[in-house]
Amino acid sequence: MNVIFHVDEMEHWAMALGNVRNMLDWLHQNKETYQIEVLANGPAVRAYLPSALADSLSVIMAQAKAEGVVFAACRNALRAQSIEPETLIEKTTVVPAGVVELAQKQQAGFAYIKP
Amino acid sequence: MNVIFHVDEMEHWAMALGNVRNMLDWLHQNKETYQIEVLANGPAVRAYLPSALADSLSVIMAQAKAEGVVFAACRNALRAQSIEPETLIEKTTVVPAGVVELAQKQQAGFAYIKP
Amino acid sequence: MNVIFHVDEMEHWAMALGNVRNMLDWLHQNKETYQIEVLANGPAVRAYLPSALADSLSVIMAQAKAEGVVFAACRNALRAQSIEPETLIEKTTVVPAGVVELAQKQQAGFAYIKP
Repeated sequence: MNVIFHVDEMEHWAMALGNVRNMLDWLHQNKETYQIEVLANGPAVRAYLPSALADSLSVIMAQAKAEGVVFAACRNALRAQSIEPETLIEKTTVVPAGVVELAQKQQAGFAYIKP
Repeated sequence: MNVIFHVDEMEHWAMALGNVRNMLDWLHQNKETYQIEVLANGPAVRAYLPSALADSLSVIMAQAKAEGVVFAACRNALRAQSIEPETLIEKTTVVPAGVVELAQKQQAGFAYIKP
Repeated sequence: MNVIFHVDEMEHWAMALGNVRNMLDWLHQNKETYQIEVLANGPAVRAYLPSALADSLSVIMAQAKAEGVVFAACRNALRAQSIEPETLIEKTTVVPAGVVELAQKQQAGFAYIKP
C-alpha cells in the first residue's frame, strides 16, 4: 500500500498524524508492506521546526518515522516562510516543489489523501 | 464512473452531499453506471447519528442511498468519538480504517474527491 | 505531467494559485510538457467574476492562462450562485458538473491535488 498524505495547514496536522497512525496499525495487523509519505507545503511546513507541534503529535511523528514513514517539506514553502532547511527537525526530507511531488507520487501509483 | 468522496469535518457534509447529488444527476442523464462511496472519518462520522444533519441534508443522503451510494464510517473514528456502530442510522457501512478504505478504493481505480 | 487542482472555497484560491505557479516554474525548469486544469465548484466559482480576486492573484491566474492552464467552473455551482456564464472573466471554461470533471480527469491519468 503506497500512500501520500497532503498537509497544507497547521491545524490539519492532528488529523493527518492520527490518519497515519491508524494506517500503520492496520498495515502491521495485516502484514502489508507500504510506502507512506506525508508531504507538507504552505504554512504547514512550520510543523517541522523544533517544538512546533504539541508533544503528543511529535511522539506520533517520531514513531511513524521509526516505522519508515517519510515526512517531506516543499522547498518553495520553506523559502516563503523564511525557514532554513538546516533548522528543521531530524529526518525531514526537502523536495524542490511539493505539488510536483504530489503529482509524481500519484503517477507512480500512490493513493492521495488530504486529511 | 467510480468515485470515493472523503469527508472528515462536519461542516463539509453540505458540500459533499451537494457534490454527490450533482454527480448522480449527471450519471442518470448520461445513462452511466457507477460505484460511489462517501467515506467519513474524524469528527465527520457524527453525521451518521440520527438527527445529526439538517433535514435537507438527510433527505439527500437517504435518496443517494436509494440510488446505490454507499455511506461508510471509519471504525477508529467511531471509537474515538465513543459512538457504538449499532446507534448509527440505517445502511451505514462500517470499515475497519477509513484511510485504508480511501487507499484501497483508489488502487481499485476509484477517483478521489475531497469536498 | 497532468494535474487537476480542485478549489471549492474562496479562501483557498491564494494557496491554489501559489501551487500552480510553483508547478509551472518547476515544469519550465525541467522542460516537461503538461496539462494543468484548475476546477472550481461550490462558492469558489465566484473567483471567476471580474475583480473578485486580489490583484496579485488575478495576475497569477492571467499568467497561468497564458502558459496554458485551464480554469474551469462547474455549471451547477454557477447556477446555485445565480451567476450567468457570460459574466465570467475571459477564458473561463464552463463544465456541466465539476465533480464529474474531477473524476473523468483522474480516470484519464491526471493527478488530483486539493489545496
